[in-house]
Amino acid sequence: MKVLSQNTAYGGMQGVYSHPSETCNCEMTFGVYVPPKAITDPCPVVWFLSGLTSTHANVMEKGEYRRMASELGLIVVTPDTSPRGSDVPDEITNWQMGKGAGFYLDATETPWARNFQMYSYITQELPALVSQHFRMDMSRQGIFGFSMGGHGALTIALKNPDRFKSCSAFAPIVEPMTADWSMDAYEKYLGEDQTKWRQYDACVLVKDGARFPEFLIDQGKADGYLETGLRPWLFEEAVKGTDIKLMMRMHERYDHSYYFVSTFMDDHLQWHAERLA
Amino acid sequence: MKVLSQNTAYGGMQGVYSHPSETCNCEMTFGVYVPPKAITDPCPVVWFLSGLTSTHANVMEKGEYRRMASELGLIVVTPDTSPRGSDVPDEITNWQMGKGAGFYLDATETPWARNFQMYSYITQELPALVSQHFRMDMSRQGIFGFSMGGHGALTIALKNPDRFKSCSAFAPIVEPMTADWSMDAYEKYLGEDQTKWRQYDACVLVKDGARFPEFLIDQGKADGYLETGLRPWLFEEAVKGTDIKLMMRMHERYDHSYYFVSTFMDDHLQWHAERLA
Repeated sequence: MKVLSQNTAYGGMQGVYSHPSETCNCEMTFGVYVPPKAITDPCPVVWFLSGLTSTHANVMEKGEYRRMASELGLIVVTPDTSPRGSDVPDEITNWQMGKGAGFYLDATETPWARNFQMYSYITQELPALVSQHFRMDMSRQGIFGFSMGGHGALTIALKNPDRFKSCSAFAPIVEPMTADWSMDAYEKYLGEDQTKWRQYDACVLVKDGARFPEFLIDQGKADGYLETGLRPWLFEEAVKGTDIKLMMRMHERYDHSYYFVSTFMDDHLQWHAERLA
Repeated sequence: MKVLSQNTAYGGMQGVYSHPSETCNCEMTFGVYVPPKAITDPCPVVWFLSGLTSTHANVMEKGEYRRMASELGLIVVTPDTSPRGSDVPDEITNWQMGKGAGFYLDATETPWARNFQMYSYITQELPALVSQHFRMDMSRQGIFGFSMGGHGALTIALKNPDRFKSCSAFAPIVEPMTADWSMDAYEKYLGEDQTKWRQYDACVLVKDGARFPEFLIDQGKADGYLETGLRPWLFEEAVKGTDIKLMMRMHERYDHSYYFVSTFMDDHLQWHAERLA
């Protein structure tokens, strides 16, 4: 693991690291914020998954999570959204496919399958790596994310309810199988057989029986992707009649930006801290 | 005034605007954060001046000021650091001169004088403009900044003690006349006669009799520019024996980045709010 940068912030340390990923067959970069409490005690970990076009850096610069993570004693890991590098296939004019658009799934189709293994990377390789290097209590993990990363958080939590104790999302893509910015990517990554897509779709996972105790979702009503890409009401319908608790908050005037995410970041970190206590 | 973007954040509005500047002879861009309190009451204004290589956007993205500004009811204006555009002279391989390096002075030398009038822009043209468009109480203004912008804040406050009621700085350049990243720029902007430089140097202004009631300065001890560019102890010496109060705080492990600035942003906003109450 290479140290790319380390900066003191709110008494703790914001680091950026990279490592050769066996899962993604390329060098992968990620951020880790370590609160001052980790000097004396192993701390719970929250994973923040970012959205389309983002890297590990967007939430690190604009998410405003360090003050509250420092106060609550949470380690925050911010992975990249896809494999990177000149050897990795891409569609350079399409921001909804390839680099920056990993959709937190394991691709099966050529040429994507060799690198686009973000589900395995996030759930296996990266946790194994970071838990060796930081004072993490891996029995206390939460996961959250924004937009495509909200989709990642919901689906990964639903598929791994024993590993994660808390999950939340900002403006998540709740049904990517039918959303206009993910359908094409799913076909390219996973092939035409839509039964293979079902494991990477929060609404469909719930319909297929996956369960997680409770979710917090924040959504801006002035979000330009609300009707075509996000449609959080589909997730409300999916969990209806199940034992899944959903706290869905709709916010007037907020859009699809880190101005929205940062505004509600404290609430999400407190949500996780309460469940990881 | 053109609206470039407006995003709801912490109940208020972060906007980015541009306008044709008569002072700088070019289109100038700036940010304004308006807290929710401004819906019902005129609010005090704090001006944040940024450092070398920055635009209006750096602190807007990384400074983490909106939460506390919303809570305290402060309007935050974030100007650019220099004139911009293809007609504006520059030294493109020198980050300490030209675009991004206005040093908050009024240049007198060719070819810089036509555009590099940042002192007049910040103290006259921009306040006149924004006070027309936002609910600002111009009798309650504070000023602060980071690095070159810390220099800007200190010198502008010292030269305008009747206009500003509060001033603070993160890692300011306190004696630019002798600092290695500003001496060359001062000669190019102001000519060889160093008596003309004295009005844009906080330490020298104090020696020459300028006064301001009190300053808060935060400085990281792991700041790579501490010894050669910043040297806050020179300002401590300059104010010694005067009636200027200086709260200088030195912080172990903090460097010259927005990780440092954001960590202490709340303290600075509270400092200003108390003095602008």
